[in-house]
Amino acid sequence: MPNKIDVTLGIDIGGTNTVFGFVDRQGNCVAESSIPTNPYEAAESLFARLHLEIIELKKKITDNYNFIGIGIGAPNANYYKGTVELPPNLNWGYVNVLEIVQKYFDIPSAITNDANAAAIGEMKFGAAKGMKDFIVITLGTGLGSGIVSNGELIYGADGFAGEIGHTIFDPNGRQCGCGRKGCLETYASASGIRRTVYELLCDSNDESELRKISFADLTAKTISEAALKGDKIALHAFDYTGKILGIKLADAVAHTSPEAIILFGGLAASGKLIFEPTQKYMEEYMLNIFKNKVKLIPSALTNGNSAVLGASALIWNEIDKQHELIAR
Amino acid sequence: MPNKIDVTLGIDIGGTNTVFGFVDRQGNCVAESSIPTNPYEAAESLFARLHLEIIELKKKITDNYNFIGIGIGAPNANYYKGTVELPPNLNWGYVNVLEIVQKYFDIPSAITNDANAAAIGEMKFGAAKGMKDFIVITLGTGLGSGIVSNGELIYGADGFAGEIGHTIFDPNGRQCGCGRKGCLETYASASGIRRTVYELLCDSNDESELRKISFADLTAKTISEAALKGDKIALHAFDYTGKILGIKLADAVAHTSPEAIILFGGLAASGKLIFEPTQKYMEEYMLNIFKNKVKLIPSALTNGNSAVLGASALIWNEIDKQHELIAR
Repeated sequence: MPNKIDVTLGIDIGGTNTVFGFVDRQGNCVAESSIPTNPYEAAESLFARLHLEIIELKKKITDNYNFIGIGIGAPNANYYKGTVELPPNLNWGYVNVLEIVQKYFDIPSAITNDANAAAIGEMKFGAAKGMKDFIVITLGTGLGSGIVSNGELIYGADGFAGEIGHTIFDPNGRQCGCGRKGCLETYASASGIRRTVYELLCDSNDESELRKISFADLTAKTISEAALKGDKIALHAFDYTGKILGIKLADAVAHTSPEAIILFGGLAASGKLIFEPTQKYMEEYMLNIFKNKVKLIPSALTNGNSAVLGASALIWNEIDKQHELIAR
Repeated sequence: MPNKIDVTLGIDIGGTNTVFGFVDRQGNCVAESSIPTNPYEAAESLFARLHLEIIELKKKITDNYNFIGIGIGAPNANYYKGTVELPPNLNWGYVNVLEIVQKYFDIPSAITNDANAAAIGEMKFGAAKGMKDFIVITLGTGLGSGIVSNGELIYGADGFAGEIGHTIFDPNGRQCGCGRKGCLETYASASGIRRTVYELLCDSNDESELRKISFADLTAKTISEAALKGDKIALHAFDYTGKILGIKLADAVAHTSPEAIILFGGLAASGKLIFEPTQKYMEEYMLNIFKNKVKLIPSALTNGNSAVLGASALIWNEIDKQHELIAR
């Protein structure tokens, strides 16, 4: 009988779907599935459903693979405590997710937020292989970030480090979901660029196909498509988004001096529409000693669902750290 | 014969004086001296003079102490390369300081900038003992910073991490020595508060004893003394300085989530005049998950010249890391 290959399970809990898959040590997703996330359902109930689905998926691979760990990416997750705390899109309150998981599976498990999972995913399997200092920025509905320094993810004193989306661009700026004003994510995110388009539609008289779309229907994808067709408002919106993101990334560089900043998620898929202005303004506002040193690159988590790869990488990283300790 | 006690030499190279002293493992400075720094003198020449002075100082302690390492704090120093690069107040250009030092002393040596040295000093001997995540802010002529995460100083990819003084508060703000505009240190530093006083003297008609002092003669100490006497302009200047520092410290917390932020240096000596507004505005502008968690505390490097203690701590830290590696 040939040796079985070790795999870990990556679980990404999103507001709409919970996606999960078995991933090997090289970052190949060997089996993947998903279930809908019901925002009104308790965490216990979601994990009861998820447990049954995992058992089913595991049956498909059990002849060739050993299942050795679980990594979870979830909103407002705390790595140290194993908890999820008041997630914005789920009616969970405070819940200890790792305790629930350990009722079903007696194997190593870990949880963190999706941006931190993405950062570890890039380090293990993606664009940050071999890097010891880098930042991942996830540009989704909001803006998340995971910061790696000295080869380790920064969780900080309380486990919540890496909230670059909630650094303040303008203390008198746009209202943010966090209750303050002018946070970076109110400008640089899928929802931020939508707000920018509406601001520009109001300020300028330029013709734009975006004038026909309601605020509710407008998406980053629509804006991206309009920009590719040369729509002035859409192009201006990308430039403005890149400017504010670039200014705040120059600030982030002044904190931890990364080798690279990796853009990840929906808005990053707009490619050079977002990369070019971000790079340009980041360099323009960069302190001289850091100029032309920091690479701005796209995610390279491509062998499966990137969020699942990130969640799996989280627990692979823990398992590898344990092996290193034992080997000493 | 009793066992000799190990000491390291801490050297702080400032624009006016170079201070140096032998410091034991507990952070006690057992002998200290200084020589003037001539800004027009080459690094080689300064170290030739310094070498003779160190030999003299060492004679005084040689019966009881072993001299086992050298730590240096200097402006624009690069930990990885051992260099000092274009220091603002010294006519050095690019120079490899560790190579010069090793001509005179065949013992472990390390160099970093003064703010990083201060951070390691607080971790080894001062207010951050036992902490794994904290930030030191040095409020001198400029604003320096040293960031510790996961128990290690963040040097970043290029060795220059921790430039919070050059994060941008206002892209259209005050001219900074770095060539950009609106850097934090143009507001929150001894020179920044002086600029603020002049802005307030211009904007307001309030009586102030500071109206009698020229810009060139005005110092943070004068402003502090006026504030203690209730001078409205001086008090307003401290409030404004604390507001901008507080806003940008809230940003720094969103990056690395420190347990504490330690204020160090001349302006920090103004005590509650600067601590109270900084704390108030930092909390006001803090993301909810970090509110009321981060301690704002003064430096506790008190058993000698704090810059010498910091520089010594840098090499103690290296020596301890080597011992840990050997012990494994």
